Amino acid sequence: MTVTLEECAAMLKKADYIVILSHQYPDGDTLGAASGLCRALQKMGKHARCECSDEMGARYRFLYTGVVPEQFEPQFIVSVDVADSKLLGRLETVYEGKIHLAIDHHGSHVSFSAFEYVDSAAAATCEILPKLIQLLGVEIDSAIANSLYTGLTTDTGCLRYPNATPATYRTAAFLMEKGADAAEINRVMFDTKSRARIEMERRVMDSMEFFDDGRIAMMEISCRMIEETGALESDLDGLSAIPRQIEGVLVGVTFRQRLDGGYKVSLRTQPPIDAAAICAHFGGGGHRGAAGCAFDASLEEAKKQMLEVIRAQLRLP
Amino acid sequence: MTVTLEECAAMLKKADYIVILSHQYPDGDTLGAASGLCRALQKMGKHARCECSDEMGARYRFLYTGVVPEQFEPQFIVSVDVADSKLLGRLETVYEGKIHLAIDHHGSHVSFSAFEYVDSAAAATCEILPKLIQLLGVEIDSAIANSLYTGLTTDTGCLRYPNATPATYRTAAFLMEKGADAAEINRVMFDTKSRARIEMERRVMDSMEFFDDGRIAMMEISCRMIEETGALESDLDGLSAIPRQIEGVLVGVTFRQRLDGGYKVSLRTQPPIDAAAICAHFGGGGHRGAAGCAFDASLEEAKKQMLEVIRAQLRLP
Repeated sequence: MTVTLEECAAMLKKADYIVILSHQYPDGDTLGAASGLCRALQKMGKHARCECSDEMGARYRFLYTGVVPEQFEPQFIVSVDVADSKLLGRLETVYEGKIHLAIDHHGSHVSFSAFEYVDSAAAATCEILPKLIQLLGVEIDSAIANSLYTGLTTDTGCLRYPNATPATYRTAAFLMEKGADAAEINRVMFDTKSRARIEMERRVMDSMEFFDDGRIAMMEISCRMIEETGALESDLDGLSAIPRQIEGVLVGVTFRQRLDGGYKVSLRTQPPIDAAAICAHFGGGGHRGAAGCAFDASLEEAKKQMLEVIRAQLRLP
Repeated sequence: MTVTLEECAAMLKKADYIVILSHQYPDGDTLGAASGLCRALQKMGKHARCECSDEMGARYRFLYTGVVPEQFEPQFIVSVDVADSKLLGRLETVYEGKIHLAIDHHGSHVSFSAFEYVDSAAAATCEILPKLIQLLGVEIDSAIANSLYTGLTTDTGCLRYPNATPATYRTAAFLMEKGADAAEINRVMFDTKSRARIEMERRVMDSMEFFDDGRIAMMEISCRMIEETGALESDLDGLSAIPRQIEGVLVGVTFRQRLDGGYKVSLRTQPPIDAAAICAHFGGGGHRGAAGCAFDASLEEAKKQMLEVIRAQLRLP
């Protein structure tokens, strides 16, 4: 059942012994929202803790500095930034059917809670939280502001993706006034790379090939690269954006080798090239600018087949 | 003589046949401010044109789409984002002593005009311009908004440097409401790299060496790399930031080979390491986090000497 943000606040005011759930493979938004809300509830004198199926990346640990870890039997369960109960990972079986409230910003949200508040116009769940925390009557301090700013900036690629609206920018300004250290958070989130990440960038760039006067760029992420660099999944985040960043490239293709030897393909395109249409030829799908598909074939064969369909889209011989 | 923004607007309202000057090696802020102001003045029915000592990069050309190029004898000269008349380049001799008004945000502004308005709290000159254009009584349209947003975002590294304040974010939000296509501008400014740039990144990363458990990273930009990749000076922008971006690196050093064979060194450090103190040993200088010096020595010798001084700063044997 859909509720207003005022009703969310009323429920949380009445509740105690509250567990806050984040989604699996946690990102800055689900962790920032959880830690920000947990801090607010603890400031109200309530018992609250955060739970997540997976361990968080080291860069996110500061979000929980000073959050008191509490053990208790939960009486109220709220999820933040969880679009589907499947995304709770191993916590799905623990909490399925027991979640009171879901707060989310995904337009694709699939109902799984007794009550839900979904604002798909918000760029991040952390764009919703400042209003909620104010409705709770809690003063937003610098720790809460840092938590929420982190979610805002990571979900918008440092406010640069099309989902960032004037409201997102104004919320960011408000959080900075409440003490968020935007410059330091953005340095950690966007200007810091692991050794393995740098090593992966070097190797995928070494694998880059250009076709058709540089309008098509293809690169590979092999199991061997990952093994040799010791890269974690988080070190591979966004690598597939590299080919399309190159001037003149209309279609950027990344072939990620699977452990069974097949390839997962990520396609990124510039208008008017339709990535989803290209991937549909191979049983895949996605959006106009970003789509994916899979091949049970050698890299050479996968490249050849992709090139053929891409060239047809580019109307090249 | 210092004037208020209201007085700037009054002067511009009275003026006609206006030339707007940008600084040499023009960036997004000086070009965005000039084109935004020029559009506003032309909308008022005034004669106005922009002048700059150097050609602008291809990525900035859209700022002038639809700006009518006008030839006339100037009656009023205004500079935007020019901190010192020296920075006018070859236009200095043309306009020195004739500039009526300077609008700028540099704290280091050196007076050179009859009247000046300098707001050093503004992250960019384009943070000042929306207020000025409103005082002129001109409705900010999407073309003006795109010009001004470009300056805001390029001068703040996509709103992520410490100079971006809540006011900067709010100005950005306002410009988006007036039609600025923030996502597209940020894609062009921050997510687009030339082939030569990608090639340079690959090569400098190949040259990277780590010392002292990864606390020191050193890399080289050789004349040969530049020649072989065809990189322009603009393709080298910010390369020296790469070593310090790596997790665990406290001191990042970039050795740029000079045509005469010597080396220009850029140092980037994390607190508490003082880059300026290290470079002072070699007759260089700069800030705590970023400094430079030069060596008339081989790369091996330069590295050896730098390592010695850096290790002393790191208090390592």
